[in-house]
Amino acid sequence: MLSKNQSKLITCLRQKKYRVQYQLFAAEGIKIVNELLSSNYELNKLFCTKDCSASFKNYDPQIISEKELSKISNLSSPNKVLGLFKIPKPPKIKEEGLVLALDDINDPGNLGTIIRLSDWFRVSHIVCSKNTVDCYNSKVVQATMGSLARTSITYTDLEIFLKETQLPIYGAVMDGVKVYSSKLQQNAVLVMGNESNGMSKIIESLINTKITIPKFSKSTVTESLNVATATAILLNEFRRR
Amino acid sequence: MLSKNQSKLITCLRQKKYRVQYQLFAAEGIKIVNELLSSNYELNKLFCTKDCSASFKNYDPQIISEKELSKISNLSSPNKVLGLFKIPKPPKIKEEGLVLALDDINDPGNLGTIIRLSDWFRVSHIVCSKNTVDCYNSKVVQATMGSLARTSITYTDLEIFLKETQLPIYGAVMDGVKVYSSKLQQNAVLVMGNESNGMSKIIESLINTKITIPKFSKSTVTESLNVATATAILLNEFRRR
Repeated sequence: MLSKNQSKLITCLRQKKYRVQYQLFAAEGIKIVNELLSSNYELNKLFCTKDCSASFKNYDPQIISEKELSKISNLSSPNKVLGLFKIPKPPKIKEEGLVLALDDINDPGNLGTIIRLSDWFRVSHIVCSKNTVDCYNSKVVQATMGSLARTSITYTDLEIFLKETQLPIYGAVMDGVKVYSSKLQQNAVLVMGNESNGMSKIIESLINTKITIPKFSKSTVTESLNVATATAILLNEFRRR
Repeated sequence: MLSKNQSKLITCLRQKKYRVQYQLFAAEGIKIVNELLSSNYELNKLFCTKDCSASFKNYDPQIISEKELSKISNLSSPNKVLGLFKIPKPPKIKEEGLVLALDDINDPGNLGTIIRLSDWFRVSHIVCSKNTVDCYNSKVVQATMGSLARTSITYTDLEIFLKETQLPIYGAVMDGVKVYSSKLQQNAVLVMGNESNGMSKIIESLINTKITIPKFSKSTVTESLNVATATAILLNEFRRR
């Protein structure tokens, strides 16, 4: 059974202001919940349907019906389990290895994909501008496919971070040097800009090396790659060397 | 003014069976419609709001209200123009350059992103298995951002195509050779598999060279890259050589 208050709490966590107020976020589905449970994230409360209560018995699950789950779920096909987790304190930024800096990424699907890529390519830290979409937004959490559990993310004033870092700063732009011929340091910051507007002028002025993924199409139409696919290609370029 | 029949026709095109029946698909938004208009796609009918009727005056647009547009639009924020275009005859597959073969890609957003990438990296042809999501699905059309206008796509029996092609066949799998050390031919087929299940056994058996994007994460959790980001990285690998 789900109480009215529980139901209200869980659905209000879809809004950032309530996640900030309660310092909680929701994650759904067996794979994602399991990965968070086996990480440093602290569980607040676990809700699951009867058929998978045995798998989660160590976490004192509250059994709810399929119908109750579908009421609190943010998924079109709810998947047996929903966990409420505490939002951790933002980790101190590790200025070593490959640091990814995001300047106002708006789309939750893009941020989720970028977190998943960062896990794959062993990015040591993701530094987000304050206007980047919240990584505890439920669409982001789901798009990370569990990689959120293994990624360090901090929201901060990106301008101050870039001014103070000792690492060389690379940035993805449309008119930089071809990334294939760029020397890429293994300890570095890579900055990716907003989906529609690219990087802000002030952030772009702090870049040491502007890099570009060459276009091979013969089309003369102005176009760009999606920010998540561009991030995939650039992280691969840093790692393949 | 929009007639009831027009409104009914446009909304029914969201379903594949009606697109097949009428051989029409809908595209929305100024950028995408403009790119289709300046390509070989044949316009059937253009609907736009009054404020942009001048830009489309050469195409005999039917002026509709914002409210009418929002009724027929498939977008959460309708964008001034909706065009109905004829579905072209499937082009003959060009067996030269880089051919991308898709084995049952399900997600419209993924297919749209892959079409956009194929345009960027000058893929000469996309060959889709018959169960791959329809490229005239409105979510696919919108996700291509207009690249659909510049991409050749054919749906066919992928097994027969791969058995008959003279090109070397590469396939993305989890346990192949590292792509960085693979010799990649410039005239080749690259096969990408389904989001959840990867490639079907029979398709995998037809691959000449199985390639893999190495994972740099120390995590031991079974995971994979999203198919669109994996395609981005592999197309970049073929082109950077």
